[in-house]
Amino acid sequence: MNASTESALLLATERRARYAAVRAHSEALAEPLSAEDQCIQSMPDASPTKWHLAHTSWFFETLLLKPHAPGYRTPHPAYASLFNSYYEQLGPRHPRPQRGLITRPDLAEVRAYRAHVDAAMDALLAGPLDAERAFLVELGLHHEQQHQELLQTDILHALSMNPLRPAALPQAPRAAAAGQPFAWIEQAGGEAWIGHAGPGFAYDNESPRHPLRLQPYRLGNRLVTQGEYQAFIAEGGYRRPAFWLSDGWATVQAQGWTAPAYWLPEGADGQPEGIYTLRGVEPFRPEAPVLHLSFYEAAAYAEWAGARLPTEAEWEAAATGPQAAALHQLHGVAWQWTRSSYDPYPGYRPWAGAVGEYNGKFMVSQLVLRGSSLATPPGHARDSYRNFFPPAARWQFSGLRLAQDA
Amino acid sequence: MNASTESALLLATERRARYAAVRAHSEALAEPLSAEDQCIQSMPDASPTKWHLAHTSWFFETLLLKPHAPGYRTPHPAYASLFNSYYEQLGPRHPRPQRGLITRPDLAEVRAYRAHVDAAMDALLAGPLDAERAFLVELGLHHEQQHQELLQTDILHALSMNPLRPAALPQAPRAAAAGQPFAWIEQAGGEAWIGHAGPGFAYDNESPRHPLRLQPYRLGNRLVTQGEYQAFIAEGGYRRPAFWLSDGWATVQAQGWTAPAYWLPEGADGQPEGIYTLRGVEPFRPEAPVLHLSFYEAAAYAEWAGARLPTEAEWEAAATGPQAAALHQLHGVAWQWTRSSYDPYPGYRPWAGAVGEYNGKFMVSQLVLRGSSLATPPGHARDSYRNFFPPAARWQFSGLRLAQDA
Amino acid sequence: MNASTESALLLATERRARYAAVRAHSEALAEPLSAEDQCIQSMPDASPTKWHLAHTSWFFETLLLKPHAPGYRTPHPAYASLFNSYYEQLGPRHPRPQRGLITRPDLAEVRAYRAHVDAAMDALLAGPLDAERAFLVELGLHHEQQHQELLQTDILHALSMNPLRPAALPQAPRAAAAGQPFAWIEQAGGEAWIGHAGPGFAYDNESPRHPLRLQPYRLGNRLVTQGEYQAFIAEGGYRRPAFWLSDGWATVQAQGWTAPAYWLPEGADGQPEGIYTLRGVEPFRPEAPVLHLSFYEAAAYAEWAGARLPTEAEWEAAATGPQAAALHQLHGVAWQWTRSSYDPYPGYRPWAGAVGEYNGKFMVSQLVLRGSSLATPPGHARDSYRNFFPPAARWQFSGLRLAQDA
Amino acid sequence: MNASTESALLLATERRARYAAVRAHSEALAEPLSAEDQCIQSMPDASPTKWHLAHTSWFFETLLLKPHAPGYRTPHPAYASLFNSYYEQLGPRHPRPQRGLITRPDLAEVRAYRAHVDAAMDALLAGPLDAERAFLVELGLHHEQQHQELLQTDILHALSMNPLRPAALPQAPRAAAAGQPFAWIEQAGGEAWIGHAGPGFAYDNESPRHPLRLQPYRLGNRLVTQGEYQAFIAEGGYRRPAFWLSDGWATVQAQGWTAPAYWLPEGADGQPEGIYTLRGVEPFRPEAPVLHLSFYEAAAYAEWAGARLPTEAEWEAAATGPQAAALHQLHGVAWQWTRSSYDPYPGYRPWAGAVGEYNGKFMVSQLVLRGSSLATPPGHARDSYRNFFPPAARWQFSGLRLAQDA
Repeated sequence: MNASTESALLLATERRARYAAVRAHSEALAEPLSAEDQCIQSMPDASPTKWHLAHTSWFFETLLLKPHAPGYRTPHPAYASLFNSYYEQLGPRHPRPQRGLITRPDLAEVRAYRAHVDAAMDALLAGPLDAERAFLVELGLHHEQQHQELLQTDILHALSMNPLRPAALPQAPRAAAAGQPFAWIEQAGGEAWIGHAGPGFAYDNESPRHPLRLQPYRLGNRLVTQGEYQAFIAEGGYRRPAFWLSDGWATVQAQGWTAPAYWLPEGADGQPEGIYTLRGVEPFRPEAPVLHLSFYEAAAYAEWAGARLPTEAEWEAAATGPQAAALHQLHGVAWQWTRSSYDPYPGYRPWAGAVGEYNGKFMVSQLVLRGSSLATPPGHARDSYRNFFPPAARWQFSGLRLAQDA
Repeated sequence: MNASTESALLLATERRARYAAVRAHSEALAEPLSAEDQCIQSMPDASPTKWHLAHTSWFFETLLLKPHAPGYRTPHPAYASLFNSYYEQLGPRHPRPQRGLITRPDLAEVRAYRAHVDAAMDALLAGPLDAERAFLVELGLHHEQQHQELLQTDILHALSMNPLRPAALPQAPRAAAAGQPFAWIEQAGGEAWIGHAGPGFAYDNESPRHPLRLQPYRLGNRLVTQGEYQAFIAEGGYRRPAFWLSDGWATVQAQGWTAPAYWLPEGADGQPEGIYTLRGVEPFRPEAPVLHLSFYEAAAYAEWAGARLPTEAEWEAAATGPQAAALHQLHGVAWQWTRSSYDPYPGYRPWAGAVGEYNGKFMVSQLVLRGSSLATPPGHARDSYRNFFPPAARWQFSGLRLAQDA
Repeated sequence: MNASTESALLLATERRARYAAVRAHSEALAEPLSAEDQCIQSMPDASPTKWHLAHTSWFFETLLLKPHAPGYRTPHPAYASLFNSYYEQLGPRHPRPQRGLITRPDLAEVRAYRAHVDAAMDALLAGPLDAERAFLVELGLHHEQQHQELLQTDILHALSMNPLRPAALPQAPRAAAAGQPFAWIEQAGGEAWIGHAGPGFAYDNESPRHPLRLQPYRLGNRLVTQGEYQAFIAEGGYRRPAFWLSDGWATVQAQGWTAPAYWLPEGADGQPEGIYTLRGVEPFRPEAPVLHLSFYEAAAYAEWAGARLPTEAEWEAAATGPQAAALHQLHGVAWQWTRSSYDPYPGYRPWAGAVGEYNGKFMVSQLVLRGSSLATPPGHARDSYRNFFPPAARWQFSGLRLAQDA
Repeated sequence: MNASTESALLLATERRARYAAVRAHSEALAEPLSAEDQCIQSMPDASPTKWHLAHTSWFFETLLLKPHAPGYRTPHPAYASLFNSYYEQLGPRHPRPQRGLITRPDLAEVRAYRAHVDAAMDALLAGPLDAERAFLVELGLHHEQQHQELLQTDILHALSMNPLRPAALPQAPRAAAAGQPFAWIEQAGGEAWIGHAGPGFAYDNESPRHPLRLQPYRLGNRLVTQGEYQAFIAEGGYRRPAFWLSDGWATVQAQGWTAPAYWLPEGADGQPEGIYTLRGVEPFRPEAPVLHLSFYEAAAYAEWAGARLPTEAEWEAAATGPQAAALHQLHGVAWQWTRSSYDPYPGYRPWAGAVGEYNGKFMVSQLVLRGSSLATPPGHARDSYRNFFPPAARWQFSGLRLAQDA
């Protein structure tokens, strides 16, 4: 990406304010959580809150402060490996499944680490930045925003293990219902361009923008609801293999799935007795979007419904196309599973250097999700955004929108 | 697919001869193997030879004889589940990892089962066949051909567990060297059509034929050789994470991979002391194609070589294009990993009925391989053929051809 | 042990006849089984029939022929590791869980190996033997007898995986019912001596004979029956943790146990629809002894019955004491779990050399079984015999006899 | 045990003081640890500090307050299952491996729970207690003392996962060196009585006291030292299977053990660069006792040293015998592995009721350790005490004393 032209236009004061705002949002998210809450890890794929707070600081420290801020000193040399997530080029890493055992540095020390990094960053941002550094600052902020969402999905999973069903973040937003009756929105297909068109920041995996051919298709005007999904369950959705991909059916049986993640058991009325959320247990709302589905479940539901999942190209073309206004809930409610494996775009090249590990090395055995969720921070969503997770993942705010061949 | 028109043209005698020839080829392949050899199973993904012989017969019995041959009686009702592979619609199945524990029916009984099915099929084929039945016969024969290749990959794996390194099939072919020096073959890109164009049989996953846009690219004129791959190893290919997808690197470390499957340890000259094949241990041949690579290894090699894997569309467009004559080893040597996940084609619909489970339900977490191998039976290869395996699979006859953006 | 005096008394002709008889018994046991049957392995703890035939030959070859028979040549040098079970001092070993993948040498070659060893042994036995060699011959024969029983338990387990429920050995004996009503046989306790008293062969773990003190106790006059055990099941034996050791209850839940091994599901009358045996499926016989119990199940049954398992000292003291005639089924029906962990006797010393690995290194985490079973070869049982298995093992012919404090 | 006579002699004031002292000791132990430290769990066998604090309170609440303190109300009904360890008779339990995910109740709430229970207990103790209740009070206090030691072993393990190697409890005692040169202390053997002789509290597993016969033997006058153990390592102790039990050797290979737990890697002088302890990393001290051995390692060391481990009867007879004064480090340094499996004593009966699950149901697949360690609280050790752990456990303060046949 060419971040140079735009970054040159940003005044240092704007830059410092933006940095401060993004960083403060992470801390505000974590604020309701105790030191204990912030320490634990409930599965290898999820990380402790404290680790998210530290890792995002490590990112700025490692990519900007250590190479570019003369005289910068880290609070502790061990943070280099403790808070490295997966960058092979940036040295050894603490084993991922053991992140929840790091009680020291404690939360106060991690907060001090953030403040230490922030002070040094503020000094760096006050001066002139060349294009590469400006790009890395921008990347660091987008990276932090990604972790702001993960922080929420991970603490939801962690506290879901507690039989007391505590509210992790009582002020977290609820997933809004669309309010519209279902309708198909026709899309003409034909030649379409997808990928980031600029200006503004985008990840490397959204490039290069490129043309492709689409057949005519249609998309649901809104996301699938809890009530619709409950009908699938009531018709034996989790008991009939015909709806499922082979791996999906094996997962259903191995994991004993009978409903989306976080649904409480069914009550006498055949509906779940509630749904565990960041706000604690909330009532089942038939008109609200269903969340916390795996790709397997999303695809099985679509099969049952006589439809299919959209491809990522179909999603993006529609979202940027003339009928987009009829498509509700494209953003801010739930990530939407697509039928597209996470493959590189034609001509894709990872960023140079260590940040080249950000996206490219994960391009296998994952599926693309499009849109954004209720937990996506303001300013982070894009129509060209390619989120990706393995097909069995359900702890994200992931739902689905139906598609059909026209 | 529309099999009706063509099948109507086939005379019953031709059909019977073709049936007999395909079926005889399976038995000829198994003939050098003892009853013990044919019984064992070395991993859940591989099946015993005897099971292949029985399952292919079960396929004809279940889809043609039981529904369409009045008076047909199975030799044993338990075969219905013992030899069902993965068809949920066709009843319960014996657990896949336990196929190697079925000593009874013994080999003689399985041969008798084949003869029993063949006699009934011959009678069926002697009469008139409607289009659906003609299609199922054709499908059964292609299915059997697929298993002819799997029979070879599976027995190779099974006998590779024996420290005596026996020759499973001493008459098996050797992988031919291309004999050409490496060269890039330029491809113009632009609009291309891929997918089965007919006439003739194809699997449902090769349809619908559809247009797409390709950027200009180039392909290697031949497969990567053992000697080239050895250079990758010598330069630390299995020790440097920079070449690898994240999952690939994790697999290398978890499995302790240091070379392709079946390569013997390195000798004093830095070359493997031999390569275990169906013919027993054969010498390392620098100019011969490298086989038994996982997708991860193929992709890592390409990265090291400053190239990439082709997409399946690039492969098919080139193979059917004007420069195809310059592309050696498209068929008959090694399946060629592509950079394409095994996703459905736009507008894809599985076949109706139980045979709809043949391909569609596997369309996740797999990669496409193109071409065909030295073990693919005559008449089974097609340019539109979409073979698929998980990215860590190495027991197939799988190699690679390089690609680059032009 | 001092084998010298006794062995000196044996004439060479007797010795050769005994050797031939024991060896022939192994072959007679295997005779009804096909080459396929003899090749497979159903779990790491069980071995293929063919492996038993080869390993027992390897034992003679390794301990007698190679060191003591000048000019002896092995048929194949790889047999040294292929057929070594667990002797660290005797070189590397083929991995135990992969014994079932060894199709070559095939059964005919293994039979030839046996004949080859037998010919060389016959020559060796025809000449004079010093005490050490005579001891090793005797040990090799007892070793082979142990494997004769394991051959039966292992093939029963292997063929039990086959849904056709074939009869492995149609001529195998049935477990005899005692025919007596249950009665307690009082034992006075006091000082007792246990351990092998000679003359005759015994394993090192039966020595030294030593005194100990017993409290008064009583033993059941016969083994627990299928009908008695069924009553335990009917009263919730597998659903109520109060009867179980902690590890036992965890095993019941993890394995889903609801009855002894090889019991078919319950029919409408609340009894199992049959029991899978070496003879195929046999009817449930309320008065016949229950077999194929783990230690956990035996101990839970005893707890339910208001009793306990005997210690091995109690068992041996009673079996060799004045009331022994009242104790039925001490031998020849089922190995009887005791409440004694397999610890060394006071003053225990393993045999010198590689045969020291025969017993001593297994003296942890196992429980002692006493008596002998319907599968124990004639002449192999002793009152001082210490059989041992882990507490979850159920594939042996293992039952139980109750005990109580007096 | 007959707790009635003795408890009647205790004045209520003494009882209340003793209760308060034991409870306060737990809190004093935990005091240096942060809320984060107290929350985590590093393996299923270890528990969080906070859980220990809560579970010991649950024990009093469940066995005394709920049944015997009229009007007692629990702070939260969910604590009944959250803090139940393994008592099947006392209702469901939170899964053991997930204890480290319970951030709520937080540490302050758990402390409040302790205070709540303590207030109610103090009121209960102020009144008259019948024998059963007095026994349960005493049991609760001994139970708490056991957890005081586990709290230390568990936090040591938990913080050992932190690459910063923090000091968990900087004031924790160091293991004292004996100061004596090694000497064998001869023991005559003959009839001995072992088991609790009273008066005073003992666990049910120490009864009944009973006679047995011992052969003459000798014991080391002190524990094996770090320097002696290092000599074993230097002579290939972890590379030579001949010293090891079969399961022990398998564990060494599977776990990659090359030294006792918590030993840092070897430095240039062939000695470990330090040993991780509750006080942080301490220097290697050749004369200090070696700790954190598994039974397998203790037994292998003894084999290498031409000795063996003592049986528990030998240990107890010597510790209570006339030569005991010559035996150093019997208590207060390290639990001493014995060669005795944890079997019931003859005539053993578990306590009646739920407390019968305290010991008896674990009597299989464990080994007895005798003595006590530097972490055993004052007043908790007894010569008849039977500690027990599985043979691979190394996170306890476990060492060894050598024995030999005389």
